Amino acid sequence: MRQITAGELESASLPQLKEICEEVREEIFRTVSACGGHLSSNLGAVELTVALHRVFHFPHDKLVFDVGHQCYAHKLLSDRADRFRTLRKRGGISGFPKRTESPYDCYDTGHAGTAVSAALGIAKARDLKKEDYEVIALVGDGSFNNGLVYEALNSLHILGTRILILLNDNGMSISPTVGGTHEALSRLKGGEGGEDDVRLFERYGLTYRGPVNGNDLKELLPALEGAKEELKGGSVLLHVVTKKGQGYPFCENAPLETHGIAPSDGEGGTEYSAALGEELCALAEKDEKIVAVTAAMTDSLGLRTFFERFPERSFDVGICEEHASVLSAALAAGGMKPYYAIYSTFLQRAFDEIIHDVCGQNLPVTFCIDRAGATGADGETHQGVFDLSYLSFIPNLTIAVPKDVGEFRAMVRMSAGFNGPLAIRYPRAGKDGRSEPVEIGKFEVLHSTMSDIVMLACGERPLGIAERVRRRANAEGIDFTLINARFVKPLDGKLLNSLSAKYVVTLEDNARIGGLGDAIARFYAGSGKEISSFGYRDAFLPHGTPQELAEEFGLSEEDVLRCVRDFYARR
Amino acid sequence: MRQITAGELESASLPQLKEICEEVREEIFRTVSACGGHLSSNLGAVELTVALHRVFHFPHDKLVFDVGHQCYAHKLLSDRADRFRTLRKRGGISGFPKRTESPYDCYDTGHAGTAVSAALGIAKARDLKKEDYEVIALVGDGSFNNGLVYEALNSLHILGTRILILLNDNGMSISPTVGGTHEALSRLKGGEGGEDDVRLFERYGLTYRGPVNGNDLKELLPALEGAKEELKGGSVLLHVVTKKGQGYPFCENAPLETHGIAPSDGEGGTEYSAALGEELCALAEKDEKIVAVTAAMTDSLGLRTFFERFPERSFDVGICEEHASVLSAALAAGGMKPYYAIYSTFLQRAFDEIIHDVCGQNLPVTFCIDRAGATGADGETHQGVFDLSYLSFIPNLTIAVPKDVGEFRAMVRMSAGFNGPLAIRYPRAGKDGRSEPVEIGKFEVLHSTMSDIVMLACGERPLGIAERVRRRANAEGIDFTLINARFVKPLDGKLLNSLSAKYVVTLEDNARIGGLGDAIARFYAGSGKEISSFGYRDAFLPHGTPQELAEEFGLSEEDVLRCVRDFYARR
Repeated sequence: MRQITAGELESASLPQLKEICEEVREEIFRTVSACGGHLSSNLGAVELTVALHRVFHFPHDKLVFDVGHQCYAHKLLSDRADRFRTLRKRGGISGFPKRTESPYDCYDTGHAGTAVSAALGIAKARDLKKEDYEVIALVGDGSFNNGLVYEALNSLHILGTRILILLNDNGMSISPTVGGTHEALSRLKGGEGGEDDVRLFERYGLTYRGPVNGNDLKELLPALEGAKEELKGGSVLLHVVTKKGQGYPFCENAPLETHGIAPSDGEGGTEYSAALGEELCALAEKDEKIVAVTAAMTDSLGLRTFFERFPERSFDVGICEEHASVLSAALAAGGMKPYYAIYSTFLQRAFDEIIHDVCGQNLPVTFCIDRAGATGADGETHQGVFDLSYLSFIPNLTIAVPKDVGEFRAMVRMSAGFNGPLAIRYPRAGKDGRSEPVEIGKFEVLHSTMSDIVMLACGERPLGIAERVRRRANAEGIDFTLINARFVKPLDGKLLNSLSAKYVVTLEDNARIGGLGDAIARFYAGSGKEISSFGYRDAFLPHGTPQELAEEFGLSEEDVLRCVRDFYARR
Repeated sequence: MRQITAGELESASLPQLKEICEEVREEIFRTVSACGGHLSSNLGAVELTVALHRVFHFPHDKLVFDVGHQCYAHKLLSDRADRFRTLRKRGGISGFPKRTESPYDCYDTGHAGTAVSAALGIAKARDLKKEDYEVIALVGDGSFNNGLVYEALNSLHILGTRILILLNDNGMSISPTVGGTHEALSRLKGGEGGEDDVRLFERYGLTYRGPVNGNDLKELLPALEGAKEELKGGSVLLHVVTKKGQGYPFCENAPLETHGIAPSDGEGGTEYSAALGEELCALAEKDEKIVAVTAAMTDSLGLRTFFERFPERSFDVGICEEHASVLSAALAAGGMKPYYAIYSTFLQRAFDEIIHDVCGQNLPVTFCIDRAGATGADGETHQGVFDLSYLSFIPNLTIAVPKDVGEFRAMVRMSAGFNGPLAIRYPRAGKDGRSEPVEIGKFEVLHSTMSDIVMLACGERPLGIAERVRRRANAEGIDFTLINARFVKPLDGKLLNSLSAKYVVTLEDNARIGGLGDAIARFYAGSGKEISSFGYRDAFLPHGTPQELAEEFGLSEEDVLRCVRDFYARR
């Protein structure tokens, strides 16, 4: 798409602005259809973004996104229209704001709830440096459930600065938004809001304005101009109501299904989430203690059917990862058997609660950690490559990594009879495979040889690499024992002690620091064995395909093969 | 103290109840004076706890504490009066609620903000199991700033259960409570609260009652009885105003200073926090970009003087560890140089933000991590033994561990010129020592020998153990090189590569998994060196002195010496 300049936006008539909106909307639709990405949320935010670029002066003024998945129109309108069709490709435009990509992106995001805090920090730095620009936080209504937003609002008075909060209210947070704040927003949107609902926000020391139709420039432009003016007197919250998927009826009608679109060349396979849902339903039939907890992601975690069949035992608390963890711990303390399903990087938000509430009390909460390992196109903030590292040192926790969907099913079944904190981490999709019973802390020998070399891998991608390396090594006359190290904690000490191999290679779909490789090295300390470990090197993984990232960042088939070959040559 | 029974409480007259309060208060004062612990908050909560035990039936009803440091009266009134004088001693009564200690403790705490979530989870389990008891969350006003409390309140409607929230409002959260919610509470307390302030709470779907004087049984008992009755119709929040330190004028007048009392036999030394305050003030004089951020702990982190001298550049955002992290990141994004001081275990709350906001953007935020290592008497939730593990795998982060207060000063000075994320972790107090310039990633050789053995230790306690082991080994004719491994990341690769020793011993005041030992093992993988690493074993460290914990949980001088001796014998 051609680059629309600030000058063009400034001088455009209302009909011309509408045309620009259509141009932007079409480019988003075309690009996301080809590259995958966030669709409905971006379609809904086109008018709002165009209006923002008309009324404010970026990058002089600062636009802070929350989550940031709705930044596509902003990227097209700033300085990246020519490169936009590289969206989410390795080396191309990121699907999220990136300071390193453009001066128009002033703050990186990816997780929910940070924008108000971030805007306050930037505004405060501005004040201290006696600079003069506006800071705008664009926050979805889903994020308004997150405790972090509340913490930021609560400190507005203390910080004594001014920001504009744009509450982009589309009633969704992947799943529909829930909770007390949402109910106030609904009343305000419906024209039934009272002074009371307004005060919900104003009590924190800002002026509430709205609601305005965020897909109608005629309403939106004067509202934004007005907010900009009022900003001189202090912080303003402008409540903007947008329609997720606006402009494309099939998106408007299915905002949940069109929230994220996989690229047409995406990695296929069976979804682990679907298997989770089926297994949990089967378990819940037999065991009334089983409950499911999620933080606003019922569908993408495979829990839809469970929620429909067992509504009493289903809890979606909104984008509140910490609360969901404590709730799970307390449900367990009260005698239930909770399964808390969540994406790997989002669970980082509940890190303290995993330690303090779940493992500290040794409670039988099962963390179903989806999107673990390199997830690909969403980039840095969505790569689930730290979970083995941040879980391994937590006392009382058992960590399981299935080799395929079949083994995952077996692990979920096993979990029903396990009475302690358990984490099962798995990618989005993969191979089916059989479901043979799994025992806590027992590895699986996939290929046994008398070779001096043993390879230990956990998870589907690493085991796939290991298998391919084994085939290629075999062709060169080299063989090795291959083991599915499906428990990173506890390790299978008995099996490890029985191995006489002198050379041990480990592979994991996780940061090299702190995962399986380190656990094996710790186990074998003083044994005289030589160990080579493969995992992601010490860097944030950008967007790209998982395959590209694996090869570039430390899980390269070639490198593993070379290591095996080298040892064989000098053994 | 004698055990006061439920029967005695039930039949007691008001004057008798007041006598019981005095008895409890005296026992708390006496015990804390001897054992150390939380004083003022417990003195303030005596009447409230006595009233709770009179009106409710524990352990049938469930009392969930927030933070839990105010549980002393509860422990005396439940089943631990006879053992109370073992408070905070190894093997004695914990200073926090512990399920393993008594059936009267239904949920373990130590960090702020979990009680409402936990009470909701327990209540929901009750409903599902069709049991009948009341669940009470006792929450201080300081915790009401924490986002987790908001997340829990926001989901009250969704969860559709009933709990009683007792808001114990003493106006303090170690430092005085701040923020928008606090202002509403102040108005309500002052009798100036409007419908509006009440609605702040009621909008979440509960009934607000209060404020009542929480130190006056005559007001308190009927209020609690009334709340219990209203609870039949849904959740209730009872606003109870208490005086921190009640009954002891010097505590009432200095609630901050008497919040925590060190035992008279506590470990002395120079406070790192005081050095932090001095160094930051000196830096801030010269550099206008330096700002300080804290989450409600200005004094205990040594920042009082900085806050007084540079109020514009000082931010206490209340008990909001996550918000404080994002705010720090954004201040840095806006061009400032933030120092975020916080206790090691509380920083766990900001784990995602360290990754997502600070290190993901490679911003120059310095985390000043106080109370790192085994802290002792506060037990499991306050032992700062995980930070090296949860920080080591985060890309872009530099991690420094000073050997004494002098080196800590040098590190803080060094940080001023360092342009990336930096964590400095240190204990509460220790030796003074000189302040020679420190270079990023450079170890210090403390004792150089031609021995086959090298010992790498980081931090004051491990280096102290190392020195003692060296003296004892020397007496046996064994010597080794001793190195201050003051950067856990990056390691001093040049120095490590230059070491020809065959046997490497590491020591750290951190969990054995994921810290210095693992980093050294990773560095030396394939080198053929034999490595023995000492740190805390894979368990939650209970209360006890740091010395006791070190010996019992993996940092024993004897064990280290034995290892050295063993290697020497078979070298």
